[in-house]
Amino acid sequence: MRRGVLAVHADCLPLTGQTPRISLGEGETPLLPAPAVARAVGGGIKVWLKWEGANPTGSFKDRGMVLAIAKALESGSRAVACASTGNTAASAAAYAARFGLKCLVVVPAGHIAMGKLAQAMVCGAKAVAVRGSFDQALTIVRELAEGHGVTLVNSVNPFRLEGQKTAAFEVVDDLGCAPDCLCLPVGNAGNITAYWAGFKQYHAAGRAASLPRMLGFQAAGAAPLVTGAPVLKPETFATAIRIGAPASREGALAARDESGGLIDSVTDEEIRQAWILLAREEGVFAEPASAASVAGLLKASRAGRLAGARQVVCVLTGHGLKDPEAAFGATGQVEQVEADIGSVARAAGLA
Amino acid sequence: MRRGVLAVHADCLPLTGQTPRISLGEGETPLLPAPAVARAVGGGIKVWLKWEGANPTGSFKDRGMVLAIAKALESGSRAVACASTGNTAASAAAYAARFGLKCLVVVPAGHIAMGKLAQAMVCGAKAVAVRGSFDQALTIVRELAEGHGVTLVNSVNPFRLEGQKTAAFEVVDDLGCAPDCLCLPVGNAGNITAYWAGFKQYHAAGRAASLPRMLGFQAAGAAPLVTGAPVLKPETFATAIRIGAPASREGALAARDESGGLIDSVTDEEIRQAWILLAREEGVFAEPASAASVAGLLKASRAGRLAGARQVVCVLTGHGLKDPEAAFGATGQVEQVEADIGSVARAAGLA
Repeated sequence: MRRGVLAVHADCLPLTGQTPRISLGEGETPLLPAPAVARAVGGGIKVWLKWEGANPTGSFKDRGMVLAIAKALESGSRAVACASTGNTAASAAAYAARFGLKCLVVVPAGHIAMGKLAQAMVCGAKAVAVRGSFDQALTIVRELAEGHGVTLVNSVNPFRLEGQKTAAFEVVDDLGCAPDCLCLPVGNAGNITAYWAGFKQYHAAGRAASLPRMLGFQAAGAAPLVTGAPVLKPETFATAIRIGAPASREGALAARDESGGLIDSVTDEEIRQAWILLAREEGVFAEPASAASVAGLLKASRAGRLAGARQVVCVLTGHGLKDPEAAFGATGQVEQVEADIGSVARAAGLA
Repeated sequence: MRRGVLAVHADCLPLTGQTPRISLGEGETPLLPAPAVARAVGGGIKVWLKWEGANPTGSFKDRGMVLAIAKALESGSRAVACASTGNTAASAAAYAARFGLKCLVVVPAGHIAMGKLAQAMVCGAKAVAVRGSFDQALTIVRELAEGHGVTLVNSVNPFRLEGQKTAAFEVVDDLGCAPDCLCLPVGNAGNITAYWAGFKQYHAAGRAASLPRMLGFQAAGAAPLVTGAPVLKPETFATAIRIGAPASREGALAARDESGGLIDSVTDEEIRQAWILLAREEGVFAEPASAASVAGLLKASRAGRLAGARQVVCVLTGHGLKDPEAAFGATGQVEQVEADIGSVARAAGLA
């Protein structure tokens, strides 16, 4: 039975006797062999996909949110808040709904993508748009967290990253060892920070004999950790990593340097090609940002930067159903033919 | 590690030594306690949700598709085909893509909802629209399956229902016994047929001491098994069960009668209310059709038809992300306020 990450990894998380062991069935996500990606990489390297779209709200955010919500409950909080319109808001709304907390989502007016907000709002989150910038929205949420019994569940909440470590634990448990390289998309940089902390913790506890090299990939139009400077107007098809000033910048750079890894950029075209490769060859329909991990792996392979690696894991952070616009943009026309078997067989290339 | 339903349930499925044990990580989905639904039902009855949205393509269809595709591979087929625009097509496309088969989706022209087709097309399915009816599309697909090395993967393929039995196995394995009642949506009626077969098989094998009563629920505007006659123009908000002439009619009626259960209808308003209850109180964002199981449970409870039941499982068939239009329709306006903490706190009801 699926017990959830708090119960499964209780001994590796900052739980007390008073922390409720809540769950919506997050974690224990599939680690899928990826033979088509492996063929594209070459050199006999084995590749797996850590498929985080299988989490309850469709993204990896649920791993950290379940702990952040459990801790909010433990502290007697009555509400949670975040300044997010995307996967974080959807996850916060679902856990808050289930475990009796109000959920507030603050967004800047004029930048509201209802497609991303709808999931949170259906789960009862209150969405408020402020006539100001995203920074102002975040500032207000932080202030609310100080005086109104509201818990901030943006990734500056340390329990978010603590919970996200569980994905690293699962990778090691499933492979029987740490992979040689872990590839993942980098936006706000919390996930690379959390994975690295998780691998180090398992290593220190003697549960993994080695540590992976951490290979993080940003979209070229939103690559502040590659260029070394914040990006004022980040732009990319991979909306979930369209971030110009990552909150966990230091953690990402430390993960890179301590692991002997790298943080590089991949173009939108490389991301798009990897996204299509995943769908058409691996049968995995991920959100575009997820494909940055695979695009980056292919780029690193071409550049000869995988020396010695035998086993590589690519993290796919969210489900393709999260971004229907991207899917529409990638589908061709539906061919119309007469209603007879010959016409259909010819159109399908079977005749 | 998630092994997939063919490996986990090999001894209960029609596998041979030549059947490839393929998987995309389907099955082993969460069984979630549902305290808010239980409170609404009353009488101290315990309620669980079988959360099938956690499957790889976001619906329960993956359980049967993995076996249908494995059998297609075993038989040397080079392509699969279906006359579906919804969850079946998305599932067929994903497994076909991963395991090297072509996938053909035939739909009637003029009835194409790209939102439903996009998932299949991104995964490389060839979509062909015929100038004719759905019945003509299905007839063509059946004919293709007879002479062109193409395997039909509509639910008339018997391996589809064989694979879907695994959900019943999991319910018993997780609860430690069969529930007293199993509630589920009924559209094409394959799932109620498969669950009942699964429960009977486990019972016969001595793995469950009892059998559940099967409580199936159709949408009032598409309830041929309740009215006793096919519905020419089925209509309901719960699009995944908008079916006027169920393919597995006989199986559904047998499940009802053999189990001492019932097949009843629920109104779109009852479905919508249950769907919102699931999202706002249980934190589970399902596709509207899924909520027919909960709406039906509540109706059966009001009618006093749960006599003696202590444990009830409601099947939630697919993820809410499958139907973004429904989500948009249920979200209110986003309130706009000035960018100061007092305005936001007031708007959020925290001041």
